[in-house]
Amino acid sequence: MEVTRKNFKETLPLISESIDKADFLVIDTEFTGLINGRDVSIFDTPQEYYTTLLNGSSDFLLIQYGLCAFYWDDLEKHYRNDAYNFYLFPRGRPGPEKMFLCQSSSLDFLAAQGFDFNKLIKEGISYMTEPIETKLRENLTERQNRMNNENEAITIPEEHRNQIEDICKKVREFLNDDTEEEIEIDKCNAFVRRLLFQELGTRFKNEAFVETKVLENKDRVLRVTRLTSANDGKSRDTQKKEKEWEEFEEAVGFSKVARMISQSEKLVIGHNMLLDMLHTLNHFFQPLPSDYESFKEFAHCMFPRLLDTKYLSSLPPFKDKVNSSVLQHLLTTLSEPPFSLSKVECAAGRGYSRADAKAHEAGYDAYVTGLCFLAMQAHLARMRGDSSSRVPSPDSPLLKPFLNKLFLSRTAHQDSPYINLTGPEPTPSRDHVFHLTFPKDWQRNDINQLFSAFGQITVQFLDDTSALVALSRKDLAKTVTRAFANNSRISIVPYVKYKLLTSKSASQYQNERREDSSEKLMKYSTDNTLARRGIVSDSNATRAPEKSRERSNSVSLTETQPARKRSSSGVFKIEEVSPPKKAELIKISENETRNSSEVVSNGRRKHSDCAKETVTEKTKQMNNVIEKFDSDSKVECVTAFKEIDNWD
Amino acid sequence: MEVTRKNFKETLPLISESIDKADFLVIDTEFTGLINGRDVSIFDTPQEYYTTLLNGSSDFLLIQYGLCAFYWDDLEKHYRNDAYNFYLFPRGRPGPEKMFLCQSSSLDFLAAQGFDFNKLIKEGISYMTEPIETKLRENLTERQNRMNNENEAITIPEEHRNQIEDICKKVREFLNDDTEEEIEIDKCNAFVRRLLFQELGTRFKNEAFVETKVLENKDRVLRVTRLTSANDGKSRDTQKKEKEWEEFEEAVGFSKVARMISQSEKLVIGHNMLLDMLHTLNHFFQPLPSDYESFKEFAHCMFPRLLDTKYLSSLPPFKDKVNSSVLQHLLTTLSEPPFSLSKVECAAGRGYSRADAKAHEAGYDAYVTGLCFLAMQAHLARMRGDSSSRVPSPDSPLLKPFLNKLFLSRTAHQDSPYINLTGPEPTPSRDHVFHLTFPKDWQRNDINQLFSAFGQITVQFLDDTSALVALSRKDLAKTVTRAFANNSRISIVPYVKYKLLTSKSASQYQNERREDSSEKLMKYSTDNTLARRGIVSDSNATRAPEKSRERSNSVSLTETQPARKRSSSGVFKIEEVSPPKKAELIKISENETRNSSEVVSNGRRKHSDCAKETVTEKTKQMNNVIEKFDSDSKVECVTAFKEIDNWD
Repeated sequence: MEVTRKNFKETLPLISESIDKADFLVIDTEFTGLINGRDVSIFDTPQEYYTTLLNGSSDFLLIQYGLCAFYWDDLEKHYRNDAYNFYLFPRGRPGPEKMFLCQSSSLDFLAAQGFDFNKLIKEGISYMTEPIETKLRENLTERQNRMNNENEAITIPEEHRNQIEDICKKVREFLNDDTEEEIEIDKCNAFVRRLLFQELGTRFKNEAFVETKVLENKDRVLRVTRLTSANDGKSRDTQKKEKEWEEFEEAVGFSKVARMISQSEKLVIGHNMLLDMLHTLNHFFQPLPSDYESFKEFAHCMFPRLLDTKYLSSLPPFKDKVNSSVLQHLLTTLSEPPFSLSKVECAAGRGYSRADAKAHEAGYDAYVTGLCFLAMQAHLARMRGDSSSRVPSPDSPLLKPFLNKLFLSRTAHQDSPYINLTGPEPTPSRDHVFHLTFPKDWQRNDINQLFSAFGQITVQFLDDTSALVALSRKDLAKTVTRAFANNSRISIVPYVKYKLLTSKSASQYQNERREDSSEKLMKYSTDNTLARRGIVSDSNATRAPEKSRERSNSVSLTETQPARKRSSSGVFKIEEVSPPKKAELIKISENETRNSSEVVSNGRRKHSDCAKETVTEKTKQMNNVIEKFDSDSKVECVTAFKEIDNWD
Repeated sequence: MEVTRKNFKETLPLISESIDKADFLVIDTEFTGLINGRDVSIFDTPQEYYTTLLNGSSDFLLIQYGLCAFYWDDLEKHYRNDAYNFYLFPRGRPGPEKMFLCQSSSLDFLAAQGFDFNKLIKEGISYMTEPIETKLRENLTERQNRMNNENEAITIPEEHRNQIEDICKKVREFLNDDTEEEIEIDKCNAFVRRLLFQELGTRFKNEAFVETKVLENKDRVLRVTRLTSANDGKSRDTQKKEKEWEEFEEAVGFSKVARMISQSEKLVIGHNMLLDMLHTLNHFFQPLPSDYESFKEFAHCMFPRLLDTKYLSSLPPFKDKVNSSVLQHLLTTLSEPPFSLSKVECAAGRGYSRADAKAHEAGYDAYVTGLCFLAMQAHLARMRGDSSSRVPSPDSPLLKPFLNKLFLSRTAHQDSPYINLTGPEPTPSRDHVFHLTFPKDWQRNDINQLFSAFGQITVQFLDDTSALVALSRKDLAKTVTRAFANNSRISIVPYVKYKLLTSKSASQYQNERREDSSEKLMKYSTDNTLARRGIVSDSNATRAPEKSRERSNSVSLTETQPARKRSSSGVFKIEEVSPPKKAELIKISENETRNSSEVVSNGRRKHSDCAKETVTEKTKQMNNVIEKFDSDSKVECVTAFKEIDNWD
């Protein structure tokens, strides 16, 4: 079911009902871009992975949200699905103005899948975070209170007096002449409208009601309506206020759905869902924290039961049988023995069936992810001798091992497969990884030759004269430094030492960068004046901020959680948020090194795109160009990072 | 005439012809946003104005370009117009991947005007700057040379051997069996395709041709075609190279039109054209220089004859008769006495007529701007006793005074009306402006009262406790500091002193910011690997970089120009570009002050939006919200800055 601003309000109860009756929910999202700047490197820790996505992804917009609720039909003994495909667009009015980033290849990709950008912009549902919602609610309440009392008069500048007087005269004539109910005053700029608002309001207070009317083409005119009784004016004020609250609720928009999903505490499933979760938290709940542990707590608090089907499919018994975990490929694999797809139906117009085949529509992808999950969980159950088709509780032994682990597609094939939201991740050794500096004229083959005595190597170029090199024969790691001690053309440093050397300045730089970019990009326009005028110390609001749910902590949290709480408005708070731990925020100093594009693993070529170019001088900007006219192997990682960003 | 990638190539000769025969050209553009971050303040100098737009606007995308060529019909004795409305979208392939910013209200506004975003993304014409074009041309040349010689083999990883062998077997069978001409190999991820490319290429070198095919939905498959003769393979390679060059030319795209306009050296007209010019230079020629004088030279070198109709309409004899210089309002004004619109016709399908009424379509707005220009120049000519309908040479006394001055709509009503591309601008005194610090509980009225003895004041709030205050009675300026010397609740500093105090740290910060943001946003993905491998020292290219035009300097330059030159590829170069002059790069330190939203001039309320919020702590982010539920006077300046960003 497609949901836009046109049918959002009437669909909300249906969505609520779908969530309530579901055994599990599946989500999928579409963005305006994937990664800006440095991409994740194959040696990154989960924490570095998170930090990289935080810096590189959070300025993109979430433009489509798929929600598919799977509920059990106890008569027919199979699942049925209710699916919703939401178009999301946080237009400036009503709601906060938003700056966001786009990646041209991502939009190109979506357009090729039939994504309707006109519908997006015209009919997309608005959304906002909880702190923004709270603030806007307060502002509106205060402004409405103020509206009654205050009316700061503006002196009419000399050059506008004639025009104002002319219009006042026209309005006087309109009021005297009893034929029309209203007149419109057009071709005034905003300032003249402001003056007229004041002058007409003062002069014809009990005779006319003045309001701004936004035409179809966004032009604004003043509409003057005749008042028929003394009370009419008052009720119009009330109507206006009610309309403002309606607009406010419309601006909160999709965030309500996201919070309903959160509040349900149900099993929420996604395929390669890390970016989906980051955007969900960042756009509908709160800005993502820079501290990794805070993020894990925050995510787990909001979504206590997550399951990533890409992670599931990367583990035995699926690992060996799944050649490609690209969603559509996975579905094909799981529809053939030894697997089989479960029967899933839907009420007419409420969900998808396989015949729809709308790949990359978020709602359909959510539906397909649900089918994949059902096939995999049925396979697992059969292996345990259980023939039930219904999914057990997420806390059951069957599913528990897979819960709350978000797949890390870029590093999974190295040695860092997931973010564990409820505990620590594996800490793989980096003893077999080295930072190599080499002469500028060296090619990949020269590095191969250098290491020929050490077996196969993985190379990640950093710039023209340096690279990270990993041995596949880890047992030989200890001999490397010594072996090259007398080689004057190159220098080699163990990875851990290299990271320590670069971390100090880099973490500093990274912090500055982060602050600066969040400032620059996702900032909302501010009307400080209103804030200045508006904030009255006692808040006798006409409508108090809604009490938001408070979730019982005991359900969703592991024992090891530090103190954190929800505020009364549902805001997640970490007590004493610690700054990013410098020692852990290990980064390649981006001012010094170019983080290059080639990653060769056993001779594989990986992700040649998305490289970070941080050389800042203008003369070097032209180097920041990807040679796009290659016939193969480079463009996929941009357009389809989400699905085929790892090589199987 | 609408131009997309579908008809661009065949339309180019028509465009060239239109430019050649035109007396003057009119342009108009549409962007994905107007200003990000701090907006121009009413006390900014032209240089500060430029720097603010450079930082706040250049990350938006130019998505529609209107070009209207007015040419003289000597038989009928009136003008005719050829108009082109280009949809522009620099898709990632072919051409460089691009990151760009959008402002939700701008997209919302364009959508309301009927802008077709689906057409934009699917059919938009690509473009690139000259340095990028040069670099891409070199890369492609080098890569094609390399293609013949080099073929680095990848060892097939254990886990992929079976799959590769299976497919090789299938291809063998296809080649043995003579029924089909080609087969497609699908459901392979990019890495497997890379392996297959290599293996199939090696094993079936003389029997089959392997290429990547991009399906409608952007999926990629390998296509294996039977070779019928030994030469077939070779000619296919040649075909492939030719196709790559075709794609390259398509990627250069609209930049060719922009450069044709530049090369024509004709009079180029726009309405409020500063942003149009900035985007034109930045997207199709070269990244804008941070140095203001370099910008002026650069702009003047590329477009030696510019005329801004908004500037023209702000001067006598138009000033007093034009109530609003919003383009549509101006047209209405100029169609009534004492003005009159000239007759302008068009060949069928080649231009606009007034009946089209497609306001905010770039091509139509360009056409309307041309009509306005014709009406104003005819009025000027009549005043001089000249009844000719044909526009005189731009270098004639009639037009020369208005040439190469770009209107500054934000500051024009204060005292800084234009950027002069061919000389210095007026340097208005700031003696009557003061920086005021006041108690936090103060409202606008408190400031009014404070200054009640000094006549009307203009207030621009900076944050909760500071503002800039300008006296309209400049003669009283000298008495201000003394008058408040004993007032302990406030402190007051002359504007010039305040700027000096803040400039040091601010210019530093600003420079860092600029580097960082240009890095972060407009960066192109880089394939350093290719660059690494590709750059062979001698460039025996299959196609040498095209020689680009060199313009005679003598025509376009005033005598006062410092040394600058064009490179052989048409690149504009300033010899020894000096760094931004610190003393001039005077900015409010954005880390310290919030640049607030209200500007009150004679009690006027201006541009409450677009304010810069630079407080970086998370807890303050919620302040970054504009209260958008007001009924009037705030939203226009975002959605229609270009037209009604000043109040008349």
